[in-house]
Amino acid sequence: MGQTHSSESAGFMIVGVIGGGQLARMMIPAAVNLGIEIRVLAESDGMAAGLAASDVGDYRDRDTVLAFAETVDVITFDHEHVPQEILRELVERGVRVHPGPDALLYAQDKLLMRAKLSELGLPVPDWARIENAAELGDFLDAHGGRAVVKTARGGYDGRGVRVVSAAHEADDWFIALAEDGRGGALLVEEVVDFRRELAQLVARRPSGDVAVWPVVETVQRNGVCSEVIAPAPQSTGRVADVAAEIAVTIANGIGATGVLAVELFQTTDERLLVNELAMRPHNSGHWSMDGSTTSQFEQHLRAVLDLPLGGTESRGAWSVMVNILGGPAEGSLADRYQAALAEHPTVKLHNYGKDPQPGRKVGHVTATGAELDVVVYEARATAAFFQD
Amino acid sequence: MGQTHSSESAGFMIVGVIGGGQLARMMIPAAVNLGIEIRVLAESDGMAAGLAASDVGDYRDRDTVLAFAETVDVITFDHEHVPQEILRELVERGVRVHPGPDALLYAQDKLLMRAKLSELGLPVPDWARIENAAELGDFLDAHGGRAVVKTARGGYDGRGVRVVSAAHEADDWFIALAEDGRGGALLVEEVVDFRRELAQLVARRPSGDVAVWPVVETVQRNGVCSEVIAPAPQSTGRVADVAAEIAVTIANGIGATGVLAVELFQTTDERLLVNELAMRPHNSGHWSMDGSTTSQFEQHLRAVLDLPLGGTESRGAWSVMVNILGGPAEGSLADRYQAALAEHPTVKLHNYGKDPQPGRKVGHVTATGAELDVVVYEARATAAFFQD
Repeated sequence: MGQTHSSESAGFMIVGVIGGGQLARMMIPAAVNLGIEIRVLAESDGMAAGLAASDVGDYRDRDTVLAFAETVDVITFDHEHVPQEILRELVERGVRVHPGPDALLYAQDKLLMRAKLSELGLPVPDWARIENAAELGDFLDAHGGRAVVKTARGGYDGRGVRVVSAAHEADDWFIALAEDGRGGALLVEEVVDFRRELAQLVARRPSGDVAVWPVVETVQRNGVCSEVIAPAPQSTGRVADVAAEIAVTIANGIGATGVLAVELFQTTDERLLVNELAMRPHNSGHWSMDGSTTSQFEQHLRAVLDLPLGGTESRGAWSVMVNILGGPAEGSLADRYQAALAEHPTVKLHNYGKDPQPGRKVGHVTATGAELDVVVYEARATAAFFQD
Repeated sequence: MGQTHSSESAGFMIVGVIGGGQLARMMIPAAVNLGIEIRVLAESDGMAAGLAASDVGDYRDRDTVLAFAETVDVITFDHEHVPQEILRELVERGVRVHPGPDALLYAQDKLLMRAKLSELGLPVPDWARIENAAELGDFLDAHGGRAVVKTARGGYDGRGVRVVSAAHEADDWFIALAEDGRGGALLVEEVVDFRRELAQLVARRPSGDVAVWPVVETVQRNGVCSEVIAPAPQSTGRVADVAAEIAVTIANGIGATGVLAVELFQTTDERLLVNELAMRPHNSGHWSMDGSTTSQFEQHLRAVLDLPLGGTESRGAWSVMVNILGGPAEGSLADRYQAALAEHPTVKLHNYGKDPQPGRKVGHVTATGAELDVVVYEARATAAFFQD
């Protein structure tokens, strides 16, 4: 496929994005600028990426995904939830899928991810695969009586993650796995004594080139990213080098294509441990839309099309991104524009076009500048206009 | 109108753009970021702004434009060619139109523009309204035997402009005006001995606030803009102040809303004279997409929605924009991506999605950085990949 579409549309490259959320939405400006046609398979009407939605349907339905793939040159994703069997059928049919199923596996299954990272010799928290409460008890005994239990699949933004201090506290998950009958297991990890969380983004194209942005500091509230500082303060030298090396090793080691986000713990004893992977543009990279020569969304499109990657120089000394979580209690984000934009003319506002709802990521703001305290203030003060 | 649509779509503001060219196209990224819904009335299918084309039809057809206006909150433009009678009917029906017909008149009719600028006391070339060859002859006699004749309406990119040295050289235009029978006339101007051309962009919102970008130098080839340097070299101090003051005086004087571009001559004796006006985002402002805190397209949307204007600080010391004129002799721009992007990873490429055609503006590139000679080289060398 692919070539027919390209020649039909004056040499445009058509990227198909599965999933219609804000990540797909934020690919649209990059696609428009680069002259790339973007088509989205959205879960429903009126989603954040609705402007580019060419199809509406269920990404778990084989026929829906196959029909969508027929209309594009390369398939990529707003999320990592497309079932492996569908991804593999696409590849068998000659569709270019980036990231491919072999790589996506490690974003879909945290047990496989942990095993792979250990195999690659990368620093990770102590972990184990556990199938029952007895095994959880053993792990707790060996790790000071506390541990983090995670479902291998389906968790995000803090869901599917539980800190436990007794072996029975994951019983409901063990029961669900037994009922599921597919021989699944849970992941248990030591509770890491971390000083802060970092994220390292890397882009990799199929032919192998990689590009990294500066490592950033991420601040979570209730398991959800609330703020990102780019670059991470006090991260020149060793921390930056190690973070970049970890991300590049992972990207090459699993054959990731597109943007890969590596969430890291910086421990109180100054080690970096890999926490999670995301294999797509990531909340920790939103600052790059305004703060970097190449945004993560443009870079992702370049990478999945196997085009040369763009420069990742920062546009200012500091960029701070603050998420708008939930939005106003009444009305819409737009109701606050007059006040917010008048007060903060240099802060860049991104509104995902979603209805406000408690906890929901409905937008973000990014400030960029020379003085970190000013930039942090500008970003936080602007975001505050949009939350009650 | 307006309010119904807003409330129906979760507080979004719907901007309707008449005209589907690259200026409408480049409003799309800004609209997506700000959560503004954009709808385009395109002249035909497959235009540059096709992604946002909600209607296809003739902007000179009253019913087509009125029907389109019913679906949006504010009307703005990709060009200045919508007939006055249609614009006035929109306003009478309560539609918000920005810029409005009273302002657009001065972008539509160069004789009215010259008269208005003279009335505002602004510096313009010597000019006259002429109805026949005898009047042209008189003007030539008084100005050293050479003059520039312009049709009052319909010219752009060098069309409708002619340098003459004999009274008979505009006879075909006089004949056409006589046949038209509406009492039209031509504009004649002195040939200005200019050192270079500048452009000053200003944005004005209906409530009156204005914001200016730094004055830029524009380079034309065959009457078409080929290159823009921002800011114009050697333009600190008086030149910058005078250029900004001229543009603000015009914007306020004619009640312009949205972006207004003022093309200026810098004469060999160091005066600034107003050449042309454009009442919309303008080629001389494309650099702002990558080189300014607020792009002209975002600013235009903010202005026509009467939102606070964004900061116009430059992101680097210098930005240079080079137009891609014509494109490759064979194939498409996309065929050159591998080579061009590999060589110039920090240059930002904008592809309008138009078929290559000699002389046609099919895209542009912008380089930004600290050293002007490096930035000029980067931009020109990148653009060269896309032209034969």
